[in-house]
Amino acid sequence: MQPKEFAIDLAHQAGDIIRSNFKLGMKKEWKKDNTPLTAADLAINKLVEEAVANIFPDHGLIAEEGGNFKETAEYVWVCDPIDGTIPFSHGLPTCGFSLALVKNGEPILGVIYDPFIDRLFFAEKGQGTTMNNEPIKVSASQNLNQGLVGLNSWPTALYDFVSLFKTISEQGAKVINCASIVYTAMLVSSGDIIANIWPGTTPWDIAAIKIIVEEAGGRVTDVFGQQQKYNGPIKGALITNGILHDKFLGIIHDAMK
Amino acid sequence: MQPKEFAIDLAHQAGDIIRSNFKLGMKKEWKKDNTPLTAADLAINKLVEEAVANIFPDHGLIAEEGGNFKETAEYVWVCDPIDGTIPFSHGLPTCGFSLALVKNGEPILGVIYDPFIDRLFFAEKGQGTTMNNEPIKVSASQNLNQGLVGLNSWPTALYDFVSLFKTISEQGAKVINCASIVYTAMLVSSGDIIANIWPGTTPWDIAAIKIIVEEAGGRVTDVFGQQQKYNGPIKGALITNGILHDKFLGIIHDAMK
Repeated sequence: MQPKEFAIDLAHQAGDIIRSNFKLGMKKEWKKDNTPLTAADLAINKLVEEAVANIFPDHGLIAEEGGNFKETAEYVWVCDPIDGTIPFSHGLPTCGFSLALVKNGEPILGVIYDPFIDRLFFAEKGQGTTMNNEPIKVSASQNLNQGLVGLNSWPTALYDFVSLFKTISEQGAKVINCASIVYTAMLVSSGDIIANIWPGTTPWDIAAIKIIVEEAGGRVTDVFGQQQKYNGPIKGALITNGILHDKFLGIIHDAMK
Repeated sequence: MQPKEFAIDLAHQAGDIIRSNFKLGMKKEWKKDNTPLTAADLAINKLVEEAVANIFPDHGLIAEEGGNFKETAEYVWVCDPIDGTIPFSHGLPTCGFSLALVKNGEPILGVIYDPFIDRLFFAEKGQGTTMNNEPIKVSASQNLNQGLVGLNSWPTALYDFVSLFKTISEQGAKVINCASIVYTAMLVSSGDIIANIWPGTTPWDIAAIKIIVEEAGGRVTDVFGQQQKYNGPIKGALITNGILHDKFLGIIHDAMK
């Protein structure tokens, strides 16, 4: 089986699990980092663990809910079974399955699936990005005015959320935070959102976004503008249409604590 | 036709328009208040205008996209054709149709429809709240820890967004802003979200939420804790499970500019 077929098949299976488990008043546990965990997260994680071990026995796995193996292999699958467990477990559909194939730290294939709207975002190195098999491109916006910006933050972020929020609003953009980095960042690849800023350190949130947005013409770096490897901890992410990348790096720089 | 049947039928027709117009890269105009407007907002507004005039000729209408009439009548229909036009027009499904029947300023019937997940929230005075015909109740949470709070803001808000965000986070709750007050506030009625704070002045954003959340056991006031009429400008909204209302009023009070 080719990696592309493998990844898309897993995405659809994960989507079935997400849809069939979605309901109001969902049961959830709370993890040590005070984020929720549901039966669906665990079921998808297990599905991916078993599939990688069976189909690509030489490849490694780094997944949000554990079961990781061969993390330093040349090829590693990096997976967030449900990005946006907070909205998913609180009645909001802004969540998705995210899976990347990473070669020596560089994402070379990525898939994100939104099971509620049935939208599959896919990219492979050098092949462009598609949404449900149609090519998509980032926005051509040259300034923030009338743009929408995804902005995620929490108390341990390196940047000051308030300062970022004010600067972005003053430049005429709207800010959205659906508590899923994948859900808003995937829409940078289609041009619907101009940029997304995210303060986290876990590679599974960004690995698929990295290739999906860049193959659509955008740019993804850490919050300092540097390239990074996605088979270990990362330093946040700035995801833009490319044109606005330096402008947003300046805005983040001025908002550093 | 009874008001209940009328409102639910309009909600389903509006939902069809929302679903069929939803796509990436949607065409939109920008209004004077720097918020977007789409063909779907206008089509639903017109549908509601004509329906009220035809079926309830003595009733008035107050709707976001205009065409208002008999605004001081005893019975007025208050409608937001698409609450969450920002997400809707940027590829995010966090939006909904909202319609209330208001008697001398007091909502006595409300419907909210989420066409992407097919969820219909309905309440009538004294009859409780249902979601797809099943009774629902607000959360029994007595504190903010592990709760989800909807928080909307913009520069002209009476309260300081940053101060609110910090206080709510420090008390252990997550904050979400999907750029649709209706979409998060409706989930207060099902207990999935513990509270929502909103700084606006337009009654169509809150009229249906008022009765849907209160008939589910919650409480809806202005941001100072006062009751208000929903056939004219309002002073924001605090929407809670009731138990936490006074606690949130204190948090807002401390965050007033």
